[in-house]
Parts: sequence; C-alpha cells; structure tokens
Amino acid sequence: MHHKEITSTQNQLVKQILVLKDKSRERKKTGLFIIEGQRELLLATQANYKIKTILFYPDLVSDDDLNSLISSEIERIQISRDVFKKLAHRSSTEGIIAIAEMKQHNLQDLKFPNKNPLILVAEAPEKPGNIGAILRTADAANVDAVIIANPKGDLYNPNIIRSSVGCVFTNQIAVGDTSTIIAFLKDQKISIYSAILQGAVNYHEQDYTQSTAIVVGTEADGLSDAWRQVATQNIKIPMQGAIDSMNVSVAAGILIFEVKRQREFK
Amino acid sequence: MHHKEITSTQNQLVKQILVLKDKSRERKKTGLFIIEGQRELLLATQANYKIKTILFYPDLVSDDDLNSLISSEIERIQISRDVFKKLAHRSSTEGIIAIAEMKQHNLQDLKFPNKNPLILVAEAPEKPGNIGAILRTADAANVDAVIIANPKGDLYNPNIIRSSVGCVFTNQIAVGDTSTIIAFLKDQKISIYSAILQGAVNYHEQDYTQSTAIVVGTEADGLSDAWRQVATQNIKIPMQGAIDSMNVSVAAGILIFEVKRQREFK
Repeated sequence: MHHKEITSTQNQLVKQILVLKDKSRERKKTGLFIIEGQRELLLATQANYKIKTILFYPDLVSDDDLNSLISSEIERIQISRDVFKKLAHRSSTEGIIAIAEMKQHNLQDLKFPNKNPLILVAEAPEKPGNIGAILRTADAANVDAVIIANPKGDLYNPNIIRSSVGCVFTNQIAVGDTSTIIAFLKDQKISIYSAILQGAVNYHEQDYTQSTAIVVGTEADGLSDAWRQVATQNIKIPMQGAIDSMNVSVAAGILIFEVKRQREFK
Repeated sequence: MHHKEITSTQNQLVKQILVLKDKSRERKKTGLFIIEGQRELLLATQANYKIKTILFYPDLVSDDDLNSLISSEIERIQISRDVFKKLAHRSSTEGIIAIAEMKQHNLQDLKFPNKNPLILVAEAPEKPGNIGAILRTADAANVDAVIIANPKGDLYNPNIIRSSVGCVFTNQIAVGDTSTIIAFLKDQKISIYSAILQGAVNYHEQDYTQSTAIVVGTEADGLSDAWRQVATQNIKIPMQGAIDSMNVSVAAGILIFEVKRQREFK
C-alpha cells in the first residue's frame, strides 16, 4: 500500500503534534490529543474514541499490525526515523502516533447500571503520575466512575495517558467543579465518604455496601471544606509512623479496595 | 558567626556534591550522599545519620535555624545564591544541602522487638517514585522492616529521598539478594506471602496475624520464581478491569493495610 510520507521534522503536522502533546490550551482549542503506542491506541478505539490520523514508523509497525488496530478508512501517514524520534516519548514505543478527538466528560453522561455504584472522586490531583496510578486502581477495581473535581489540567496530558497505561480510556470519567459534583452525588443518593481527619472514623470501621463515593484530596492541602460539610462520614487511614504522609494514589487504593473487600469483590 | 563561604559554582566541593547526587557509583565509592531540605535533614539526624558538612544559603535559612537542626560541631559552609541554585533540586527547598554518610543495610542488623513482625519485601523495584511511595506506606503502617531484594540502584538516589519525603530515614531497611533474604526469613520463621498469580488465594482471604512478610515484584516482570517456590502462600489482588495492571506501590499499600486491618492496627 502506498502512503503519504513525512520525512522532515519541520513539517507542519509534526509541529502541531508536538504542541498538542505539550499544551493543554492547544488541546482545548482543537479538541484533539495525541495517543502513543499500540496498546493505548487499541484501548482508545475500544472506548470509541475517534481517531483522525495515524502516523507510523514502518520499521516498528507493519501495515498488517495497523489493519488489526484501526479501520482502513483512517488516514495513515508514514514517518521517517527522524520524525518518529522527534515525536515519540519512548524510543521503545511501538511505532505509532495517533491524533484523536477528546471526549466530553460530563457528570450528566455518567451511567450507573449497578445497584450500589462505587465512585472514586479525586479533588484537584496535581501529579500526572498520581492521576495515572489512580486510574489504574479504578480500572482494576472496576469502579463505576472516576470523578475529577476542580482539575488542574486536562485528562489528555501525555504523562497521564502514559502513567495510566491507557486506563484513562477504560474508565468512565467525569470532570467538574466540587459544588456541582456534590449536588450530583446528593441527587443520585450516593453516600459521600471524605478522606478528612476531622471527626473521622477509621476507614475500615465504616460500612460501604451501599452506594458509595470515596473522596480524596491533595497531599499538600487535603480536601476543600465543602467535602467535610456534606460528608455522610469522614474517614481516615490510621497513621502510625514518624510522618503523617501517604502517597495519594496509595491512599485511594487502600480505601477503594476496602470497599471491594466489604462487597466481596462482587 | 563567621563561616567559610563558597561563591563559585566551579568550586571543587560543589562539583563533588553534583556527582554525589547524580552517580550511584560515586556514592558507593565514597560512602557519602546528599540530603536536601530541613525536614529531610531533621529525619536523618533523628535516625543517627552522620552529617559531615552543611552548605546553607543564608537568605533562606538562619544560623538559629541551623542550630536547632544540627550540632554546632558540624562544618557549616555559607553558599551564594548561584551555588544554591546550582545544587538545589527545588528552588523552594529550605536553603540546606547536607553531605552525609550512608548506612549499611544488612539483614543481620534488623531488629524485631514485636512478637509478630510485619515486613514488606520489594524485589528489584525500579522507579524512584515507586520506591519512595512504598517507603511512605511502610512508615505510615509502622511496618517492622522494609527489605529491598536485588536492588537496581542504591537507596540514596535523590529522587528516592525526595519522593519518600524522608521515609528512607524513618524505616528500618535492609538490602540483599533474593536467596539470602529468603534464607533469612525462613531462619526467622516469618511466613512469606508472595504476590504471584499462580496458585494464589485472594489476598483478603489469607490470615496475616502471625509473623508476615508481604513480597511484591516489579510491574513488568512480577516476582522471580524463587518467591513462588518458598511462599507460605501466594496471594493476589482480584483484578476486575479491562487491564490487569496496578501501580506496584498501590498494590503494596493495599496488601500491607489488609494486614494492618486484620491486626486491628495494633
């Protein structure tokens, strides 16, 4: 098959991809983002993300590989080694760079087919690595939704996609401001368990077998006061060390899997 | 008080500090490493690390601050803004760079005053951020020891110290090869629970109220086969998502806190 080819790192599309990787503003303006790697692309297409264009480096990925990943109707552009090295974060990546359309992440679109949904809310998470780890945990626990409150950036930061190993595509995710999310959870009659020390019970002494939202804040500032005020119950992980400190994605994992344990992983 | 002063970024000691931050080999050769920040320094001195020299930037830290942190017998060198900026990872750090002596981390030196110790073993952990998160969890859970098997580098990598927020100093840590560690655990009659899928029970169905070592491997390769062979029981976290994947520090946190829960946080 003959493909359009880009061999210059100064090509306009190459430049646009670099800006899309780097700038949240550009992603917001265009509604586009970049996916790197075969596994990530597969997960995105399975989640019905619309792929606009595929750039591929033929030494690493064949036409047959591409055919198994994406429809032949999607534009494919062959790139040179220089262009691939310029665009790819990982030299070990599988020769694929895709331009895709972002999804909306509206609270109203969340669907809860299960009777007692389990939702993980993270307020203002900062580090892409922590967001990625939280999304992996959410996928592993098969939570019904992840909600990001007052986000510091967009979900399509390449470091989030990468550290989530594609779980940014596999989870049902909504984004919103804290007050809207609280109104939504109340409207849905979902109990709110805020990870806040004040007036908290130990997390493992709380019953989570009914509809549950586990809410975690930042390592630096914790949760905003609204979450304390509306909480069905504040919960805490007992801290017995020299330092009152835990990675936020680890804390979220401990809380979510205590819910799962109480529900017998059903 | 009058202090020796360094104003040139080309100074030999400045160069040595940069090499000590960057190169595991140099740390091994000299037995020295670098501590950055007041909190980290305080935790290290509380853990009886020997501090050789303090470099301080007087705009950020006063003599009084220093007196509260370290003995007046430790050499103090005033540094200029340029030198501080060259040496400090974080511009927000508190004006202190310390040269300290590494500790040995021998298995034989581990002390277990508690009747049924809880030990976290991590085999060949790679990312400093994950090691740091694991050490924070270990501190929060007040585990009796952390053991690193077949380490990929040394504990005094600045990224480990930083991501552990100083928990590299607060934990009792030993390092060794897998076969020696297994012999040690057997000798101590500590049950081995290896996070391995083969023949595993769900982690929450195992009793951990007796002496317990929780053993986790790498995200890429899991644990080496020796841990399967010697395990008292293999354990697994049920995975119910699209991807069988969890951050290793999150998985370790879930397992360790299940032990804590069963022991009622005593």
